[in-house]
Amino acid sequence: MLAGLALWSLAACASGGTATTEVDPLPSWNPTPVKYALVDFVERVITEGDPRYLPPGERIATFDNDGTLWAEQPIYFEVLFALDRVRAMEADHPEWRTEEPYASVIANDPERLARLSQADLVKIIAVTHTGMTEQAFEADTKEWFATARHPTLQKPFPALVYQPQLELLDYLRAHGFETFIVSGGEVDFIRAFAPEAYGIPPEQIMGTTLGYRFQEVDGQPVIDRLPEVMINGDNVGKPVNIHLHIGKKPVLAFGNSDGDLQMLQYADSGDGPRMMLLLHHDDAEREFAYDRQSHVGRLDKAWDEAKKRGWTVVSMKNDFATIFPATPANDD
Amino acid sequence: MLAGLALWSLAACASGGTATTEVDPLPSWNPTPVKYALVDFVERVITEGDPRYLPPGERIATFDNDGTLWAEQPIYFEVLFALDRVRAMEADHPEWRTEEPYASVIANDPERLARLSQADLVKIIAVTHTGMTEQAFEADTKEWFATARHPTLQKPFPALVYQPQLELLDYLRAHGFETFIVSGGEVDFIRAFAPEAYGIPPEQIMGTTLGYRFQEVDGQPVIDRLPEVMINGDNVGKPVNIHLHIGKKPVLAFGNSDGDLQMLQYADSGDGPRMMLLLHHDDAEREFAYDRQSHVGRLDKAWDEAKKRGWTVVSMKNDFATIFPATPANDD
Repeated sequence: MLAGLALWSLAACASGGTATTEVDPLPSWNPTPVKYALVDFVERVITEGDPRYLPPGERIATFDNDGTLWAEQPIYFEVLFALDRVRAMEADHPEWRTEEPYASVIANDPERLARLSQADLVKIIAVTHTGMTEQAFEADTKEWFATARHPTLQKPFPALVYQPQLELLDYLRAHGFETFIVSGGEVDFIRAFAPEAYGIPPEQIMGTTLGYRFQEVDGQPVIDRLPEVMINGDNVGKPVNIHLHIGKKPVLAFGNSDGDLQMLQYADSGDGPRMMLLLHHDDAEREFAYDRQSHVGRLDKAWDEAKKRGWTVVSMKNDFATIFPATPANDD
Repeated sequence: MLAGLALWSLAACASGGTATTEVDPLPSWNPTPVKYALVDFVERVITEGDPRYLPPGERIATFDNDGTLWAEQPIYFEVLFALDRVRAMEADHPEWRTEEPYASVIANDPERLARLSQADLVKIIAVTHTGMTEQAFEADTKEWFATARHPTLQKPFPALVYQPQLELLDYLRAHGFETFIVSGGEVDFIRAFAPEAYGIPPEQIMGTTLGYRFQEVDGQPVIDRLPEVMINGDNVGKPVNIHLHIGKKPVLAFGNSDGDLQMLQYADSGDGPRMMLLLHHDDAEREFAYDRQSHVGRLDKAWDEAKKRGWTVVSMKNDFATIFPATPANDD
């Protein structure tokens, strides 16, 4: 496996001419077997003549978002956005002050919030995510990303992306990979921060998809967001979205929870070289520790499947040298 | 407008060093105002400092497929595929020999075929496009593209792409544009020939989208094609697909019929430099001539809108120096 690290120093010399020191493309990954396996995989698939060589068009990598590229505790950030939006929309909806589930959200009382049911959350997501144009929703999300702070980590949400994953995305793209996000979150919510945070353009982002309606309003074409789910992007929706948006099986797929199981199964079922990864959140000190019992980002069945199939389990504690970027991603 | 052509000779000199002759990136386009306008648009949006400069990520071009990138007469080629598939499937469906609309298709009697209703066609599309895995459908389409011939032009269908458009796609990509197909046709049908024919990868192809279901069969993950329409990719479905798949407004959009009207309206509504084009089929001698009265590829409302908004109408007769490639695109 040491050959992998040797390869990147050779590559640096060959391409640079004057390069004399080794350039580590993944400085925020500890020098563990996981890092060597990643570099070995990439170096082989880009090397013509290697039995594992893949032409650029086949170098498709898909990443889950919540818990894989950025944090997801204490609850998916999109839910926090929805709760904040209900409070921001209160002025236009005075009736919400006495109407549940909105009244509990406006009161912002932890006990009442904890009692919200799944049906309540669906209502909250619906009123905050639909019934407006794309343009209006984009403005809502961008404002939130610019101003909101994580409740315990006290940082803007776009600063809660994982530095090792930013390096991995860059490393893959520098070697001809296309890097896609395949999320259970709503696609336009992710598009509001991910292009800047990860360098992934909107056309390479997919997720849960609502109904859209095109119409002309006062001579201006607009797209309205409808209160219906066209594609549920989690679980079995991940391979469906991959087929719809990419039309090819990924050769590298990276998730962190049972919601990513089908994406990994689907990607792993293709011919040729493949690498499947799961990020295990086992670092209560620097981030969060959760797996089989967690309500958010549960890692249970996918973990068993990883052991059975030899997928790579990445330990946040052991494999990540750093967790978050030193400078918030949105302060550039 | 002559400045446009001057620009590409300058560019050839600057980049080549030894280039002494002008290199025309669009040899199959006649030197008409349309060609000058196209080259002028592209040269300006790629030139830093020009008020119309666009960074690469905004250089999004969308093309309709039927009638814009390849022919569509006497009827959409996908319908011809469906009719051929019914005949190929007859052996497994002996009951079809006496059951309409299949019996008429199997008999292949022009008079009976002409009497098929829209509902009949929907049935025929459904049995030939759904009820199988993605893998099986891909095999069906690829076999058809390799063997079927156009009824009057007597060529394989992938040879009926327009040479001037192949050059335009190459020219755009060489200047940092991403080129997408936005079709009313079914997305996986198009993906079976378009990557090879146009150099457009599956992830940049969108169209009418059926229901997909992911499941494991004998331990193998498969995607099944369901007899339901998730997205009707024509008309108002074009801006919806563009938003879903790209998430940005195209700066160049090229269509040929009323089915492209909303795509052009949507693309034209963005800020900054834009170019909207419609291909007018007015060349009965070399291809086909049809517009306001045609059942296939009707160009009526979109033509009026083009005149009103100053969109570019491309005359196949006057602006295309050649129509089809000299060598079939699939014989490389």
